Amino acid sequence: MGVIRNILSSRSNKSGNFFSVLNKTLGFKPKNVLHYRKAFTHRSLNIKDEKGNAISFERMEFLGDAILGAVIASHLYKVAPGGDEGYLTKMRSKVVSRKHLNELGKDLKLIDHVETNIPKDQFGANIHGNLFESLIGAIYLDRGYKYCKRFIYDRVIDPYVDIEQLEGQVISYKSLLIEWCQKEKKDFEFEVYEDTGNDEMKHFAVKLWLDDKVVAKARATSKKKAEEKTAKRAYYALQNKIS
Amino acid sequence: MGVIRNILSSRSNKSGNFFSVLNKTLGFKPKNVLHYRKAFTHRSLNIKDEKGNAISFERMEFLGDAILGAVIASHLYKVAPGGDEGYLTKMRSKVVSRKHLNELGKDLKLIDHVETNIPKDQFGANIHGNLFESLIGAIYLDRGYKYCKRFIYDRVIDPYVDIEQLEGQVISYKSLLIEWCQKEKKDFEFEVYEDTGNDEMKHFAVKLWLDDKVVAKARATSKKKAEEKTAKRAYYALQNKIS
Repeated sequence: MGVIRNILSSRSNKSGNFFSVLNKTLGFKPKNVLHYRKAFTHRSLNIKDEKGNAISFERMEFLGDAILGAVIASHLYKVAPGGDEGYLTKMRSKVVSRKHLNELGKDLKLIDHVETNIPKDQFGANIHGNLFESLIGAIYLDRGYKYCKRFIYDRVIDPYVDIEQLEGQVISYKSLLIEWCQKEKKDFEFEVYEDTGNDEMKHFAVKLWLDDKVVAKARATSKKKAEEKTAKRAYYALQNKIS
Repeated sequence: MGVIRNILSSRSNKSGNFFSVLNKTLGFKPKNVLHYRKAFTHRSLNIKDEKGNAISFERMEFLGDAILGAVIASHLYKVAPGGDEGYLTKMRSKVVSRKHLNELGKDLKLIDHVETNIPKDQFGANIHGNLFESLIGAIYLDRGYKYCKRFIYDRVIDPYVDIEQLEGQVISYKSLLIEWCQKEKKDFEFEVYEDTGNDEMKHFAVKLWLDDKVVAKARATSKKKAEEKTAKRAYYALQNKIS
């Protein structure tokens, strides 16, 4: 690994804060940062390991895709005890759709860390999702299945995977909630403010006021997402009253 | 879980030694045997859990399939550092082909443990592979990813997954070895004997003699497999001399 380690390490000068951004993205300390460097190495760099094998994040995508599939499968198995295998397969394909993975990768700004010899604007739209998968592959190689599971719960399942929403029964928790407030003649307000805190990324925080009480709070990388997350939390908190 | 536990547990009388066979098949002690009972429950039994959800091994197949895919992906990623993602995908689909999974399930005689209201001879050929997947699903629920990995290495990867064989470069290690012996004018003999030992299943043991020395030994559930496994071990042990 000597040669490749040297080549990949030298990039730390260029990419500067790769390590510290990585820590924040992952939510834990990587053991071997080399795996993550590989996860952001495009084949156009023509880096080879000591045996002459090309290094490229595309191989790691294959690995990350499989791990992601397993974690999502086990989550759906548990939360949808009434769904048969056809249903579970359909729900999973919604969660791991290209569109969704691209959004996830874009939110984490993974493309900023790619090392490539071709201009980044020439990558197709799927680069974001591909990098998200290769990052999961790197986590697996670095820390194993458990850390992947934790990362996927933090970044995919907790914020975005909701059976009712996946089924299309609930399009938006925000509109559900607004409807209910109007029917019940309650005053409500989504109070939104920018709250970047210690994060690299811009974050929005939202408080939902019902009459004169805060009933839910959430943070996310966009105003819309933060509102939806808050509404979802409020929905579950108020569930007995709403449905 | 009260009702379902009672229904499933009562089967222990019928299936008798389910638990002891399970121990041998798994290579470790299950914590919660209920998961394994579910993994062998056909929907024709019409068992429902306390919330009215149908119990059937088909849901567990979905889970097992995903875990198997992840373990095989990570193995291939490691053993084929020169293969790109297309290659890795192709190799994986060979390992987890229906045909291969059916063989694995058949070898373990999983069908013997199925509880069903329809005659077993009416199941299609894929029942064996399906049960193999549902068994992996049960292991995951009972003991987590690590135990699945261990089981898959024991039952799938170590005995059957060989990159050269998957690529079709090596059709049979036995014929490779015989060819070499003939060229080198070596006496060889595959000594085969039945060796069931403590296993439920009939096993064959093979010793490969080269001139007057035993160069490799292996056990498997068929004579042909045991010979091939022995030849593969001898091939790697003698690799410098052979290639």
